Amino acid sequence: MTSIEDLETPSLLLDRGRLTHNAARLRGRLAHLGVPLRPHLKTAKSIDVARLVMDRPTGPAMVSTLKEAEVFAHFGLRDLLYAVGVTPSKLDRVAAIRARGVDLCVIVDNLTAARAVAEKARDTGDRIPVLIEIDSDGHRCGVLPSEAALLVEIGRTLHEGGAELRGITTHAGESYACRSIAELEAMAEQERSAAVSCAEILRASGLPSPVVGVGSTPTAHFARDLSGITEVHAGVFMFFDLVMAGLGVCTIDEIALSVLATVVGHRTQKGALFVDAGWMALSRDRGTAGQAADQGYGLVCDINGKPYRDLVVRAANQEHGELGIRAGSDAPLPDLRIGDLVRILPNHACATGAQHDRYHVVDDASSRFVRDVWPRFGGW
Amino acid sequence: MTSIEDLETPSLLLDRGRLTHNAARLRGRLAHLGVPLRPHLKTAKSIDVARLVMDRPTGPAMVSTLKEAEVFAHFGLRDLLYAVGVTPSKLDRVAAIRARGVDLCVIVDNLTAARAVAEKARDTGDRIPVLIEIDSDGHRCGVLPSEAALLVEIGRTLHEGGAELRGITTHAGESYACRSIAELEAMAEQERSAAVSCAEILRASGLPSPVVGVGSTPTAHFARDLSGITEVHAGVFMFFDLVMAGLGVCTIDEIALSVLATVVGHRTQKGALFVDAGWMALSRDRGTAGQAADQGYGLVCDINGKPYRDLVVRAANQEHGELGIRAGSDAPLPDLRIGDLVRILPNHACATGAQHDRYHVVDDASSRFVRDVWPRFGGW
Repeated sequence: MTSIEDLETPSLLLDRGRLTHNAARLRGRLAHLGVPLRPHLKTAKSIDVARLVMDRPTGPAMVSTLKEAEVFAHFGLRDLLYAVGVTPSKLDRVAAIRARGVDLCVIVDNLTAARAVAEKARDTGDRIPVLIEIDSDGHRCGVLPSEAALLVEIGRTLHEGGAELRGITTHAGESYACRSIAELEAMAEQERSAAVSCAEILRASGLPSPVVGVGSTPTAHFARDLSGITEVHAGVFMFFDLVMAGLGVCTIDEIALSVLATVVGHRTQKGALFVDAGWMALSRDRGTAGQAADQGYGLVCDINGKPYRDLVVRAANQEHGELGIRAGSDAPLPDLRIGDLVRILPNHACATGAQHDRYHVVDDASSRFVRDVWPRFGGW
Repeated sequence: MTSIEDLETPSLLLDRGRLTHNAARLRGRLAHLGVPLRPHLKTAKSIDVARLVMDRPTGPAMVSTLKEAEVFAHFGLRDLLYAVGVTPSKLDRVAAIRARGVDLCVIVDNLTAARAVAEKARDTGDRIPVLIEIDSDGHRCGVLPSEAALLVEIGRTLHEGGAELRGITTHAGESYACRSIAELEAMAEQERSAAVSCAEILRASGLPSPVVGVGSTPTAHFARDLSGITEVHAGVFMFFDLVMAGLGVCTIDEIALSVLATVVGHRTQKGALFVDAGWMALSRDRGTAGQAADQGYGLVCDINGKPYRDLVVRAANQEHGELGIRAGSDAPLPDLRIGDLVRILPNHACATGAQHDRYHVVDDASSRFVRDVWPRFGGW
């Protein structure tokens, strides 16, 4: 069996024990609240990971690109939500995926897209299912809960135009900016109440809304009540990362993803070590920059996954990472030699994962053996 | 012929006219200074681009990963420099590439690596060529010009240990932080003099240094004298990007790379438009954040490549880019509709390119026709 010491570096490691623990943790929470999980597969882009986090081999699941929908359809998924506002130019591809027997649902937040979906539904004789995207927190896209007339007009355009109006969805992306558990709980309630109130607006106008979906990894873990919600969406929960640890959603030792790297140089005069993992392997994500603990481009652990005290990737070039002690800390620079291996925990699992084409799967943090190699894909 | 309007979005566009112009521009400068160019292929990771920027189909060229060396060797390149400090664990792979008839040269900046290379050279009977990396600007790795004894000891370890000591290389990465032409010119001279002085130290100790290499895209364009230098290294010059434009190395209309995206939503109340190019398509690179003109995650152009005044990607999620007018500007938000196409110029060509697996090649900025599709690769 291959040891991680035999891998080329940089390589992406996935701790299967932590992955299954994280999935069970969220699933347990949501079971307690009585709402099913629709995992967002954009984080993993891997059928092997998908099968470990879904209820059934056919889904439900959520995707961020039509490429993901196509790949997961190929592997037998049949219940998919495409979670980026659909455009007229993408409807041929949506129709082709649906023609393969996949219940692919799309989202819209405007009349142009709603009219285009309805027209495509009439043209193909396929009642394409649609959720209306709601902006529950000013984060990004979506109809505002205060725009009741627009919401109803979009709903009516779909419902009477030949599409299947399936309901409401929202994503409280601003939860990433919360600074306390109380704020996270309040954000979860704000997300829930926005979605439910918009579903009520549709129903009061005689329109259907069987689905009321909400979710982000932080709100999914801190919602205390999900009354009126029919499904929860979350992605990064499966791997977790330093941003989630900084938010208090997970602990450092629940992070399932790391980048294995080799020490290639040192400049001890300036307290720096260099590894062969730069932004190409770690991504340019600096999601912890605004948090209490800025982790640079990642937190550095020894080969067994134990973090060195305050050792972070403080700068990144394409194929070089510069390790150093976090500003303000009196921790010593570890005595790492040329050729030594380290593991680097990512700021943002989705971004770091996207820089790699496979996962090297280990049983747990201290395991040296690569049990599996799981491919992951990218592109659109 | 495919029109760019028929492409799936997001897609990466490459303007061949600008690419050949940029390559001719640097080549002309260096010919004037009498020094050959060794282009760094990490920016493009494409044999088609490589062939347009190299002197000959066999090289010389430079790579940042052994995967690049292997792929380009497969396509017939025979003169390659691997520009990240080599580690003992990578020498088997180096030897295998060299055994295919490729003159693959490695770099070291420490005795551990030098001893490992010498040992591998003795074991294989192949005098692996090596450049010693010099730190000319405090940017990253390398022996300091003041560390003459270490420099000579590394040189002697290689030369007397069975490897081929080929000379010196340095990369003035700090040139990216220059703020004026005068600073760029001074940085180029600092880079040159550090490399030449280190080569002289080796020669004064009876050691060879036939190669004296320098380079970064900014210094390559502003060096006024390259006396003593035998080759210049640069990568991003082929595509250019907003960071280079901000530095004054190129103009906006020399940038050859852009991301084609579709408008998917608007929230005009907050002056925002949304496109289907987020950080997955643009990268998380914020290289212009510290420059006079912060371009967000990219500068937005119309379908003909003409920039909208002060319209930038001001926020990026995985598959969403939020467009808005730059802070402090009175420019109007363009009247873009759902489904309209835009082109986004990247902060950093290497990082944005790395998010894609192919180039859609157009003749020039205003061309709508895709003349070629050139694959690009990633990984290690």
